[in-house]
Amino acid sequence: MSLPMYQEKNKVPFNQIKYVVGVAAGKGGVGKSTLSVNLARAFQQSGFQVGIMDADIYGPSLRRLLPESQMPMKRGELIVPADCSGIKMISMAFFRKDDEAAVVRAPIANGVIKQFIQQVDWGELDLLIIDFPPGTGDIQLTLAQEARLTGAIMVTTPQELAVMDVRKAVNMFQQVNIPIVGVVENMSYFQDGEEKKYLFGKGGGDRLAREIEVPFLGEIPIHPEICQRGDQGRSIFEAEEVGIQDYFKKISENIWAELNRSKGILDYEFIQVDSHTFQLTRADGEKMRYRLSDLQRFCPCAGCVDEVTGQRKKDLGSVDDQVKAKRVEQVGRYGLRIDFTSGCSNGIYSYDSLFVTG
Amino acid sequence: MSLPMYQEKNKVPFNQIKYVVGVAAGKGGVGKSTLSVNLARAFQQSGFQVGIMDADIYGPSLRRLLPESQMPMKRGELIVPADCSGIKMISMAFFRKDDEAAVVRAPIANGVIKQFIQQVDWGELDLLIIDFPPGTGDIQLTLAQEARLTGAIMVTTPQELAVMDVRKAVNMFQQVNIPIVGVVENMSYFQDGEEKKYLFGKGGGDRLAREIEVPFLGEIPIHPEICQRGDQGRSIFEAEEVGIQDYFKKISENIWAELNRSKGILDYEFIQVDSHTFQLTRADGEKMRYRLSDLQRFCPCAGCVDEVTGQRKKDLGSVDDQVKAKRVEQVGRYGLRIDFTSGCSNGIYSYDSLFVTG
Repeated sequence: MSLPMYQEKNKVPFNQIKYVVGVAAGKGGVGKSTLSVNLARAFQQSGFQVGIMDADIYGPSLRRLLPESQMPMKRGELIVPADCSGIKMISMAFFRKDDEAAVVRAPIANGVIKQFIQQVDWGELDLLIIDFPPGTGDIQLTLAQEARLTGAIMVTTPQELAVMDVRKAVNMFQQVNIPIVGVVENMSYFQDGEEKKYLFGKGGGDRLAREIEVPFLGEIPIHPEICQRGDQGRSIFEAEEVGIQDYFKKISENIWAELNRSKGILDYEFIQVDSHTFQLTRADGEKMRYRLSDLQRFCPCAGCVDEVTGQRKKDLGSVDDQVKAKRVEQVGRYGLRIDFTSGCSNGIYSYDSLFVTG
Repeated sequence: MSLPMYQEKNKVPFNQIKYVVGVAAGKGGVGKSTLSVNLARAFQQSGFQVGIMDADIYGPSLRRLLPESQMPMKRGELIVPADCSGIKMISMAFFRKDDEAAVVRAPIANGVIKQFIQQVDWGELDLLIIDFPPGTGDIQLTLAQEARLTGAIMVTTPQELAVMDVRKAVNMFQQVNIPIVGVVENMSYFQDGEEKKYLFGKGGGDRLAREIEVPFLGEIPIHPEICQRGDQGRSIFEAEEVGIQDYFKKISENIWAELNRSKGILDYEFIQVDSHTFQLTRADGEKMRYRLSDLQRFCPCAGCVDEVTGQRKKDLGSVDDQVKAKRVEQVGRYGLRIDFTSGCSNGIYSYDSLFVTG
């Protein structure tokens, strides 16, 4: 008998994807969508299988930047993503009218995002790019917790005002243990003949990368063709004379190198030992065994621990040694949520706490 | 005896403000905050009393653009806004640390916005500018419904990708009957000597204004000083040589003219006739009298009407002719919410429906 793990249930949508990468900024209008699409093109040109999830429920723009050659389809319980010149894509834009205001209350938006994570059959992919919505609210947190990201790429423009918001998004990813792959600076300068004109400040991306100690993945200059072609749904990768695509190519190579370098450092494996025990193996080989009753005793859920005082509400001796789990669920790369047969189901055990206190 | 009206309760925070104007885009990064601050400066220079509400809970940036000379203070139940070189300001940035990720679930964010609307004592103002957050979700809807906006100014950049999102925000304001004052285009072009370089496409703002039949209020070119001074919290209004402030000045004049022109067309007045009857007077002089029992019979709340079928759940004859109201509340410029003594309290009667069917 094995514990019904989240990743088992989820095998179809996400398990054939090598890397899942978020493109995020905290802020809107810094060029996340443009970067996502052009990185996808760059990876595709290098021979990779690529998918993009447009996670902006309120302002989905990827469909315009990368029009579909085939619409998404329903196959049983799953959604087959659209085919956009060989890149797989899913976006809210496929499911409602163009100008309609998505005045969607947060729980509904969250539901859509969960569907995008659990019910899209991406098939085999080298890379899934998730284009994050602006902000650090509900949807962003749900994505960070549930989409099992390999890492996040932070996008900023050079000015301090943008960097400020990006810092907040970095902070959010750090809270849920998602590694930052690196920083990309967009709209870095305008190349005017020989001269570089810094229209939106200078050096914010590089400064941010140093500050949070991650690689600076590269900069993208302002170029009228990026906007113009984007608006028309044409790719700058088909305009050899422009040369602007080389910036995206270089950044895609840096990202791929980083992903391979850090591969697996945050991966954990489970083995079911018996119905009351499981074993957790960290990528560095370190192993820990847990008896479910021991974990139940230190359950961090609101029913077991007073949220204000931190005091334990239940007597440790009252836990049944034979307690089992109905389900063990991975929460992002952050930890485990255990649904005990005793009724506790909301406590999250972070991997950090499991390997320190276990 | 008079009905306890929303505007009575709310007298202190909002009733001494001549115009309340939202600056919105649906999208982030188009320059809403920069526009809000520089419009405030322009209005101030024309001798007006101005306030700004930074409604971006997740990425508040106004404090950086316009540093305070005096922090906000608590006075009884009310908050006195910060003083920023003579401009009154309230922002989430005053209430938490700089880099902290505001991973705030939607109901909490909504609560903050309601406090900003109901508990800030602005005093006498000619104009309150509300800098909207990106998106068309919970907070935006709460603001549009509760902040009693005179109108909304839409900001876009020239590219179609931005205009797409702004259209969605326009749609949202139209749904709740808030007039669009006009469209401002930001980052229109870069003036390179004699030549205008269109770095982010061309003409999106003007096209949008024509399409939704509102005035085009003006354009703002890309200028390194706007960003640089913004990052440093210095005003372009103190840099006479740059000339860029004239663009904001011109737009502020266009906005003021529009506000005065459309003054009052959406205002409604109540008079209490007796404890079962009130009278509604539209700005054009049209009067309607309502008996509360008649309104109760056509209550649109979910308890009275089946949300799916639209069928009325209660027998019309069962309504007591003597029913009274505990409270009548204005919902934005959209309609009335009536809290009947019979228990119904959630139905919103739009002004449109009151004047057509009444």
